[in-house]
Amino acid sequence: MKNVLQVLIYLILFNQPIFAQQKTEQWDRFELQLTHTSPKNSFLETNLTATFSHKDTTITVKGFYDGNNKYIVRFMPEKIGKWSYKTQSSVADLNNKTGELECVKATKNNHGIVRVANTFHFKYGDGKDYFPFGTTAYAWTHMTNDLQEETLLALKKTGFNKVRMCIFPKNYELVKEEPEIFPYPIKSVSTNDKGEKVYAWDFTQFNPVFFQHLEKRIDNLRDMGIEADLILFHPYDKGRWGFDEMPMEANLSYIKYVVARLASFKNVWWSLANEYDYVKSKTEADWLQLIKEVVKQDPFKHLCSIHGSTAKYYNYWIPELTHASIQDESPVINWGAAATIRNIYNKPIVFDEVGYEGNLKLRWGWYSGEEMNHLIWMGLIGGTYVTHGEAFMVGDGKNYPIFWAKGGELRGTSWKRAAFNRQIIEETGALEMADVSRDFKTATNGKGTYLIYFGKEMNETWRFNLPNKNANYDKPKKGNKYKVEIIDTWDMSVQKVEAVFELSDLNNYRFYDKNLGIVRLPLKPYLALRVTEIK
Amino acid sequence: MKNVLQVLIYLILFNQPIFAQQKTEQWDRFELQLTHTSPKNSFLETNLTATFSHKDTTITVKGFYDGNNKYIVRFMPEKIGKWSYKTQSSVADLNNKTGELECVKATKNNHGIVRVANTFHFKYGDGKDYFPFGTTAYAWTHMTNDLQEETLLALKKTGFNKVRMCIFPKNYELVKEEPEIFPYPIKSVSTNDKGEKVYAWDFTQFNPVFFQHLEKRIDNLRDMGIEADLILFHPYDKGRWGFDEMPMEANLSYIKYVVARLASFKNVWWSLANEYDYVKSKTEADWLQLIKEVVKQDPFKHLCSIHGSTAKYYNYWIPELTHASIQDESPVINWGAAATIRNIYNKPIVFDEVGYEGNLKLRWGWYSGEEMNHLIWMGLIGGTYVTHGEAFMVGDGKNYPIFWAKGGELRGTSWKRAAFNRQIIEETGALEMADVSRDFKTATNGKGTYLIYFGKEMNETWRFNLPNKNANYDKPKKGNKYKVEIIDTWDMSVQKVEAVFELSDLNNYRFYDKNLGIVRLPLKPYLALRVTEIK
Repeated sequence: MKNVLQVLIYLILFNQPIFAQQKTEQWDRFELQLTHTSPKNSFLETNLTATFSHKDTTITVKGFYDGNNKYIVRFMPEKIGKWSYKTQSSVADLNNKTGELECVKATKNNHGIVRVANTFHFKYGDGKDYFPFGTTAYAWTHMTNDLQEETLLALKKTGFNKVRMCIFPKNYELVKEEPEIFPYPIKSVSTNDKGEKVYAWDFTQFNPVFFQHLEKRIDNLRDMGIEADLILFHPYDKGRWGFDEMPMEANLSYIKYVVARLASFKNVWWSLANEYDYVKSKTEADWLQLIKEVVKQDPFKHLCSIHGSTAKYYNYWIPELTHASIQDESPVINWGAAATIRNIYNKPIVFDEVGYEGNLKLRWGWYSGEEMNHLIWMGLIGGTYVTHGEAFMVGDGKNYPIFWAKGGELRGTSWKRAAFNRQIIEETGALEMADVSRDFKTATNGKGTYLIYFGKEMNETWRFNLPNKNANYDKPKKGNKYKVEIIDTWDMSVQKVEAVFELSDLNNYRFYDKNLGIVRLPLKPYLALRVTEIK
Repeated sequence: MKNVLQVLIYLILFNQPIFAQQKTEQWDRFELQLTHTSPKNSFLETNLTATFSHKDTTITVKGFYDGNNKYIVRFMPEKIGKWSYKTQSSVADLNNKTGELECVKATKNNHGIVRVANTFHFKYGDGKDYFPFGTTAYAWTHMTNDLQEETLLALKKTGFNKVRMCIFPKNYELVKEEPEIFPYPIKSVSTNDKGEKVYAWDFTQFNPVFFQHLEKRIDNLRDMGIEADLILFHPYDKGRWGFDEMPMEANLSYIKYVVARLASFKNVWWSLANEYDYVKSKTEADWLQLIKEVVKQDPFKHLCSIHGSTAKYYNYWIPELTHASIQDESPVINWGAAATIRNIYNKPIVFDEVGYEGNLKLRWGWYSGEEMNHLIWMGLIGGTYVTHGEAFMVGDGKNYPIFWAKGGELRGTSWKRAAFNRQIIEETGALEMADVSRDFKTATNGKGTYLIYFGKEMNETWRFNLPNKNANYDKPKKGNKYKVEIIDTWDMSVQKVEAVFELSDLNNYRFYDKNLGIVRLPLKPYLALRVTEIK
């Protein structure tokens, strides 16, 4: 990117016609910078769009004002080959700027934007499977710079590939830090009778420095292969800054500005809100309007969802939402329900909050690491995805960050399993219940491999058997041969079983080994089996 | 009704202007009969509507041709007082017939039409709670008359207040009976090379005798306080009669005719289909069109849903569907999921098939009575409703009816619990999880009474405790006093516990008795407790 910027800066400084062909990898960010000086409110009163064309594809993106008389147009090319562009603006300085870029094939770890695939799952732009193994750090970008760097280091050690994070700062029990930068310019600051700061914001402008910082952090995540599940609104303000109760006009301007800046970041997901139903100032109709606005503004159709409080299910069936981002532990505490919810919505299901590993007195934050990892597996076996989270308090919580809200160091034990879990699923492929509503423990990949998860059951042996019904895939057949691996999801081991099993006749909806063979199991919880057809 | 008909017949026979005031109870059926002779296809080619007016309410209903030159207009008045009516037709004999009827207050067991109440539940027109305790007898009206009478006698002994039943006959394993009457006139009958009858139907006409018979049976059910959950389409035809693969035009004519005939029957529910996804000839778009047609034709807005195969969830969120009629056992085999599904749809949830008590080799028909009753309670505790069914085969099943399809005698044990279950719920009121997604066993009525269901757990004692979170109702408070009853849902007993329990301080999300009091329980499964505040 640096070279691209230098070329652009050169072109702008010397007022050359913008017509240069630059190379941009698929899904990388192309950026065009323009200059214009105006006495107006350039954030809202200056219009700028650019049309990018590639053979029969035309995509129009919105530019935005980045402060200091600088205007930026960003674009994320997907199709390989020559793209030409042309700007449109009622301001002459910004209008009719044309140029070309050459989109080249993605290299190395650039797999592209993540989108929905096969109804219930996700794939990167290049076709590689993406299985979400995420965590949550709501306000990590609002902490001190040192802590942010510590968070990045912590994430780097994990196998996580998604982080849920808020754009607005968070004011909540155990997270009260005052940010150094805000998304809006401050009109005035006063102090109330409790000694608290009271801000007056200019909601008609933005603070580019705030967004530049956010962008840097999103790029940091990208460089580690982590998707930024960006939460646009949340209720954790409680009268402190007022970002949860801006006028609707300001909400819509905010969406336009955020999407114009960030839609070209391949690793961005839109989460309209966290616990949307706790935001008192917004109605159901408001949320629908905000969702539609995000989708309308976004030329690249990033993943988009919204998140409620415990057991609050949004209308995830609306076409604007690409997947369900659910807060509810019940469907993964109990067998069967994760798959049911998948069947209901016919979209990918991400249980983005099912409670947190931690030591809080609050019941959402006192799970053991084992429980957290177990719930992740309960989701996986139902063909759905569960997001990790941890909430460890040290002392009174003031001096030590709790990862859930602030990032910092990961103190629990379940995060260490993320890379292992992800590897198992990446090897096995997307899952679906093999015999839905009858067998709650057996998932199939549709290609002859099964994962069977025993959860908290501790068994000495397992008699080899598979269900007949195999979702919509080919059923097993007499004579099929299988090998078995014992996966300890907690100890992160995979142990091959020597024996080969061969299916006998169908027996009451199930197939057994022709010798009624068994697998010896260690008497431990959290075991899974991977049963793979030998073809 | 008989007197009304006599008056009408008199008026028609003597060609008097129709202008007579008759008394009809709320939700009873008012019927106007008219005569006209025509060489046309009077089913489809003669238009007849009637407008009924009451102060500022105007309802237009469609008339229908009942054969033998007879046209009928039916109306179900809800508002007490004088209604006037006037017919419209392009045929002079049927046009501009006017009259009045006086709608009088419902008496005795006439509680009116059942509609949705309080989002998740149902009420009769007069405000009385309706809790569905249903069973299934798909093709009972297609059996011999003796068997139909036997079915009615069997139902009369139960506490069931809903029956799922098909309009079209059923051709399926264990139910192959040829009906005596069909909904359509026969154009020709031939015999194929397997010796089977092959019918050619006239789908442009109907067989009024078939529908008159169906109506008689719906009225029989009404007289026993049973709702007829009428299944309009189903896949169990398999090329025998072809009612599952009529042209779309015929499907729409059928809906118009059925709704014109039956919308004035207060105890009718529309179920668009059973296992709709197994009907190969209809697409998702077809189903949506058919659903919309039913709702459009129905001036009284009866309850309306559609039913899929196991774990197949229709888009129950569409406004045309009043409730979800689900086939799935998973949400009631496992804890918690019934309440989750309720939260997803925000409509009443009726699990209309969760398997059957029976002795079949097929896994959907081999539950014990205990299991069937248990699943009904698993639904109730989640604030949802579960439909009973039984499938007992005697010998090869040919000579003895299986209730599930044919009606006849009830041979199982769970049906005997329906009246008891219903009484418990009618006494307690509509339920909701008291602490959703955390406590899977405790439901609240929102007025200080709780039902706690232990399922298959067998406990010696229960330490008195209640959750703090009480849905959206008032939370319990320290000092509240409660009495407890032990309900044996299988033995149908209610045993009062002598002690009175008094809440102590809130302790980790729950309230205990100030003396940590316990209730002794019989070491038996299927127990519930009813905990009632003493105010």
